Amino acid sequence: MSKDKKYVNAITSREVDFAKWYTDVVKEAELCDYSSVKGCLNYLPNGYAIWENIRNSLDKRFKETGVENVYLPVLIPESLLEKEGDHIEGFAPEVAWVTHGGIERLEERLCVRPTSETLFCDIWQKTVKSYRDLPKVWNQWNSVLRWEKTTRPFLRSREFLWQEGHTLHATAEEARERTQQMLQVYYDCVTEDLAIPLIVGRKTDSEKFAGAEETYTIEAMMHDGKALQSGTSHYFGHGFPDAFGIKYLDKNNQLHSAYETSWGLSTRVIGAIIMVHGDDEGLVLPPKIAPTQAMIIPINQYKEGVLEKANEIFATLKENGIRVKLDDSDKTPGYKFSQQEILGIPVRIELGPKDIEENQVVIVRRDNREKIIIKIDELNEKLPKILETIQTDMYNKAKKFLDTHIESATSMDEMIQKFQEKKCFVKAMWCGSEDCEDEIKYQTGGAGSRCIPFDEKKISDKCIYCGKEAKHLVIWGKSY
Amino acid sequence: MSKDKKYVNAITSREVDFAKWYTDVVKEAELCDYSSVKGCLNYLPNGYAIWENIRNSLDKRFKETGVENVYLPVLIPESLLEKEGDHIEGFAPEVAWVTHGGIERLEERLCVRPTSETLFCDIWQKTVKSYRDLPKVWNQWNSVLRWEKTTRPFLRSREFLWQEGHTLHATAEEARERTQQMLQVYYDCVTEDLAIPLIVGRKTDSEKFAGAEETYTIEAMMHDGKALQSGTSHYFGHGFPDAFGIKYLDKNNQLHSAYETSWGLSTRVIGAIIMVHGDDEGLVLPPKIAPTQAMIIPINQYKEGVLEKANEIFATLKENGIRVKLDDSDKTPGYKFSQQEILGIPVRIELGPKDIEENQVVIVRRDNREKIIIKIDELNEKLPKILETIQTDMYNKAKKFLDTHIESATSMDEMIQKFQEKKCFVKAMWCGSEDCEDEIKYQTGGAGSRCIPFDEKKISDKCIYCGKEAKHLVIWGKSY
Repeated sequence: MSKDKKYVNAITSREVDFAKWYTDVVKEAELCDYSSVKGCLNYLPNGYAIWENIRNSLDKRFKETGVENVYLPVLIPESLLEKEGDHIEGFAPEVAWVTHGGIERLEERLCVRPTSETLFCDIWQKTVKSYRDLPKVWNQWNSVLRWEKTTRPFLRSREFLWQEGHTLHATAEEARERTQQMLQVYYDCVTEDLAIPLIVGRKTDSEKFAGAEETYTIEAMMHDGKALQSGTSHYFGHGFPDAFGIKYLDKNNQLHSAYETSWGLSTRVIGAIIMVHGDDEGLVLPPKIAPTQAMIIPINQYKEGVLEKANEIFATLKENGIRVKLDDSDKTPGYKFSQQEILGIPVRIELGPKDIEENQVVIVRRDNREKIIIKIDELNEKLPKILETIQTDMYNKAKKFLDTHIESATSMDEMIQKFQEKKCFVKAMWCGSEDCEDEIKYQTGGAGSRCIPFDEKKISDKCIYCGKEAKHLVIWGKSY
Repeated sequence: MSKDKKYVNAITSREVDFAKWYTDVVKEAELCDYSSVKGCLNYLPNGYAIWENIRNSLDKRFKETGVENVYLPVLIPESLLEKEGDHIEGFAPEVAWVTHGGIERLEERLCVRPTSETLFCDIWQKTVKSYRDLPKVWNQWNSVLRWEKTTRPFLRSREFLWQEGHTLHATAEEARERTQQMLQVYYDCVTEDLAIPLIVGRKTDSEKFAGAEETYTIEAMMHDGKALQSGTSHYFGHGFPDAFGIKYLDKNNQLHSAYETSWGLSTRVIGAIIMVHGDDEGLVLPPKIAPTQAMIIPINQYKEGVLEKANEIFATLKENGIRVKLDDSDKTPGYKFSQQEILGIPVRIELGPKDIEENQVVIVRRDNREKIIIKIDELNEKLPKILETIQTDMYNKAKKFLDTHIESATSMDEMIQKFQEKKCFVKAMWCGSEDCEDEIKYQTGGAGSRCIPFDEKKISDKCIYCGKEAKHLVIWGKSY
């Protein structure tokens, strides 16, 4: 009874209260919830299954570029975390400390990893001796812990799931190539599989990762016009490896510095999927990463032959590689429809006695509610195409939204007005000074620099804030 | 240069020093090493890739039985861990405590999870209300931390990787069925994919999991005659759920207790693979879980046409779904053979100018060193069959070893003598008393009860130690 009841709980409208809509969707779709540990999430089956599909897609793409997976300890000694100055400064305020093992007090505190650069460097310092030991192209799928004050499901929580790739190279050139290559892998995965259009670029210095020389980012626009940083790739140069004493002998037996990169993508992207594609009925999942792609819902299922036919279709589609489920529970079709919609399952397949007479099913697309009548014997051929169409349509719809919500400004008044008028990003020129960056953020009520886009085009010669010579076009936006 | 050098490092012979042989193999095959955090391992690419294949096989088997994956927090509040008396008593001495978050001292200590029964029960207490919310059949792939004093790679380390399944059921019968079902899944995976023969049975009370009513186990025999517990499945009854206040309303609106199970298999099984199949040249991996199944090693690779042909074969086999690599580095073939042997790659494929003239390759099996000459155009058809044969032969060889190393005894003198004479397990009758169990272990120099096997057959009416009426046949053995 409780199971049925909850599927009629109302979801707040996106237009009424976007933040409330978001938490309603997370709750009603049972993606995750808060655990008894403050700020830490339980990733429930519906949410974790999405992450598994993202992970599988990304992991396959990683391996095609030669990435090897490893697993390094959850704990990092304080002395190791301290080896690189900028890094410890960035992370010290937000790590959790283990001080006791069993009943004994530890000689040295250990932190629960907030990220693992230091652990990777520690191994490489011991094992990398010659150019023949390079490159190292390693990755791990794990969780990290950052003692955040305020948290939101998927977007910011104390513990989150991610992958962190770490690589070490003989030359700066090779390391820079890897930095860009992994950014491209993120771009491909997020646009192709998550159907989320992206802006790609470089972070300004103030937004860089602690210890990195350059940080690159993929930025997505949520339905409320805010940005979500969806993946980052960092070039460290040789500063980090040097701090750990990593040197290698080249072919001429000369000692050289090595060059490092790291790159990460986390369960935040589930938040992006929700806020880019979701609607007032709940989640809308792109078919490529939907745990269930099609839900068969029998109508008048107790009439003769209905469940038999439904099971037959289920078996055929499953055999054909479709991730399909059949809801033959005793709930009403109305409940089942509503549940399928909240869960964002890309299509439902309705099948009643009349349909069986006509040898057909009714397919209803989740993304646009289009009804499509299909002969049962054509289902195996046509359903995969419908799923492909949904995937493409979802991307195009989101792309159109993004394109029509990027404005330009050449004066602060114009910029402030743009942000007041509509939910958007604003392109504007910038001199490179952190002070101007801070002032722009302050005056716009929180629109920070998202990135210097790769397809940077000059729209003026002057910094929008100080009027001095502009160095870069920057995309500005409020963000999660 | 360092890369080449290490592949001629000698591995201690198994017969000379089995423990040293084991650590040599782990080191030379670069499976894992110790990190800067005492007792915690770095799972390196070669070792982690084996775990990934085991995980993929097991996860597929889980999902076929309806298991859903989740991820719960790495931290557990002290008050939650304390809710079930036996459980906290079992784990308190070996957990690591987080006492500070950022710069603040926490109001309540949090432990790094040693296992997650308490977290699962905490969720279910909040969400399970009616029979319609049952069963819950959840699993997570994660790491757990136990503050062990002495550690050995894969066999015992402070942090290890595993999966922990947790299920909740409306009836004891259904929970018992699930306990057995998952034990069977472990049995199938370990015998079929890891080629390791097993003894299956129930643990005696003294060997049960902290808080469980019944613990079932799969036990494997290592080459030194010691046992390795390779997976366990626990039936908790309603004690654990009751302690957490989990109750559900049945169809007649009556409140009922719920019944719990949990089951886990860890990276320990990598230790079992090493110690069951390995030989004096290094690892011997079963083809089904070998990260690389075939290594192509060109002979006289700088002669015209050799590398071209090798690349052609590589592409064909890869296309055909074989996990194949081609070693075209500038190391000598001798080094490459030795490296392939240490890594335990099931077959190497040798290919030189003469072979190309004959349109053939030479396949060398890792398990028995058999050379097989195959026409290149038959490789795609015959290699998968060779890999299947290796898999079967490896299982049969290990099964024969196990069967010929299980003895029986009806007196303590006989039992002690059996353990002195050969590396073995000994079957003997037992009255059910923990005192007798302890004495048997003491007098045999460490042979504890491994399990009461499912195929229990009476070999005497009396307990081997006290002579009182025997309740069970027990398999006794020394263990890791």
